[in-house]
Amino acid sequence: MIQEFLPALEAEIAEQDLGKTPVELYEPIRYLMQLGGKRIRPVLCLLAYSLFKDSWRKAVAPALGIEIFHNFTLMHDDIMDKAPLRRGKQTVHEKWNDNIAILSGDVMLVNAYQYLNKTENLSLAEYQYLCQRFNRTAAEVCEGQQMDMNFESRSQVQIAEYVEMIRLKTSVLIGLSLEMGAILAQTTREISDSLYQIGELIGLGFQLKDDLLDVYGDPEKFGKQAGGDILSNKKTFLLIRAIEQAEGQVQTELQGWLAAESYHPQEKIQSVTAIYNALGIKEETELEINQYFDQAFVAMDELPLEEGKKEGLLKFMRGLVDREV
Amino acid sequence: MIQEFLPALEAEIAEQDLGKTPVELYEPIRYLMQLGGKRIRPVLCLLAYSLFKDSWRKAVAPALGIEIFHNFTLMHDDIMDKAPLRRGKQTVHEKWNDNIAILSGDVMLVNAYQYLNKTENLSLAEYQYLCQRFNRTAAEVCEGQQMDMNFESRSQVQIAEYVEMIRLKTSVLIGLSLEMGAILAQTTREISDSLYQIGELIGLGFQLKDDLLDVYGDPEKFGKQAGGDILSNKKTFLLIRAIEQAEGQVQTELQGWLAAESYHPQEKIQSVTAIYNALGIKEETELEINQYFDQAFVAMDELPLEEGKKEGLLKFMRGLVDREV
Repeated sequence: MIQEFLPALEAEIAEQDLGKTPVELYEPIRYLMQLGGKRIRPVLCLLAYSLFKDSWRKAVAPALGIEIFHNFTLMHDDIMDKAPLRRGKQTVHEKWNDNIAILSGDVMLVNAYQYLNKTENLSLAEYQYLCQRFNRTAAEVCEGQQMDMNFESRSQVQIAEYVEMIRLKTSVLIGLSLEMGAILAQTTREISDSLYQIGELIGLGFQLKDDLLDVYGDPEKFGKQAGGDILSNKKTFLLIRAIEQAEGQVQTELQGWLAAESYHPQEKIQSVTAIYNALGIKEETELEINQYFDQAFVAMDELPLEEGKKEGLLKFMRGLVDREV
Repeated sequence: MIQEFLPALEAEIAEQDLGKTPVELYEPIRYLMQLGGKRIRPVLCLLAYSLFKDSWRKAVAPALGIEIFHNFTLMHDDIMDKAPLRRGKQTVHEKWNDNIAILSGDVMLVNAYQYLNKTENLSLAEYQYLCQRFNRTAAEVCEGQQMDMNFESRSQVQIAEYVEMIRLKTSVLIGLSLEMGAILAQTTREISDSLYQIGELIGLGFQLKDDLLDVYGDPEKFGKQAGGDILSNKKTFLLIRAIEQAEGQVQTELQGWLAAESYHPQEKIQSVTAIYNALGIKEETELEINQYFDQAFVAMDELPLEEGKKEGLLKFMRGLVDREV
């Protein structure tokens, strides 16, 4: 079944229901949607739906709404972050311009709602609850992006604030993906809430793994140069913990690298990574990641469903834990 | 009744249901929403609703969704147009910055959907139809803005293209305002379609009147300096018709002003206005405006409703025809 999800989603994306003109508005949407990606969110939505129903094709369109929303946030975040590349290709504001990326992104957000509106067979109350959850989550993702931008200009960020930022920016949408599958399948509120929690935990583990892979990932597999976060002084879980724990000479060295304006990139990456190694940051981050995933598996275990039914989602979750890309 | 609409809308705006933090995200929304404005769209929605039902307070929240959407487009358009002022005050991207205006605008669009979702008492099919119309219209407004930006870099624009641009950028949302009132009141599809058409016609007349007032309005009443469109060579109905009709010496003079890089602003405004006067552009634009409004009044006449019921909406429409601000 899960092997059929991706082809079904890609087929729907290939035929994405968009306007035609002006082309400047719609080409960037097709361009970004077709850059690929793992489609984790809609796959999670379909997996959750399949916990309760076999007729998963009915959930493909609303599930795609989440993927379109996610890509909309990428289009606008890339403008704000002045990012030149996305998945190894030019970002929309680079390939076209800022105004086109703003306006195309706006249409893309509307398009996400158009796909959400392809939901079938719910009652008005169920559908409005789904919209309410979608809307609240969409606002939270923006809140997370604003926090992330605010952190850039701050000298210090606490771990609790960082975790709250990634919860909003990344995890709530992973949570919504699972929750939406449950709501679409008309299960109980208790179960859809539990699936949201599971998704949020997965999302936290997922984002911390991203932070880890940016430093320790195999560049061949990870697809981007390791050390990007180190070069940009990005306040990730790793850097925040390193700043908190470094003392004496190590603290001086770390602060030196953070303040340095001219350096050999590879030297900065190697030196900061060496500091992380000395402080045991890798192991600590792995522990933190595992803790979130473990909680998610415990919550899965507690879901009042036949164990056999859960296997698809559990297998996908294990893939996220073990991922190297 | 209509006297109660504005206070009810302003009360709802004063208590607008928004998130709290980060403040950078939500303050700009309150700022822009509270800059004022005539609230034409939600008032039209409530007027249309009142054609069929007395319980108009139930329609206030979704009607406000249209006003929030409209203000979202202003926030993003102002970034794209690099506009320094909005209603005589700093625009959001000027008062804060571009990134905040992008992201606040995004949350504002989501907030518009949150208000749309406060719709009550419809069937799922009726509500999804409302969402479908809202979504399609929202995409069209973005299409209109993209056309408008495209026109800036073109040397020639045809009247038909211009009218299509203002139809998308302005009129479809006025159309939706009336249509939404009808859908919320659960009237027939035929009547909600007619109200959409009436709104679209009003919107065309309304925008052409805006073009006219920018040149011929009384600055004391209109609240902004006359001639802004002339100074920026904005391809309005007036300029496009003048370019089409000017010949010989007049054409040369007009093109001279369009190409001029250094001039006294008042001299350019007076000279181009004199050309408009010589070509009868004012009268032609007024004729065009009246034609759209006349069609709207004919369509109102044909609406199968008690004449007495229509009086509120008709009176409001007459106010739009006669407006000098």
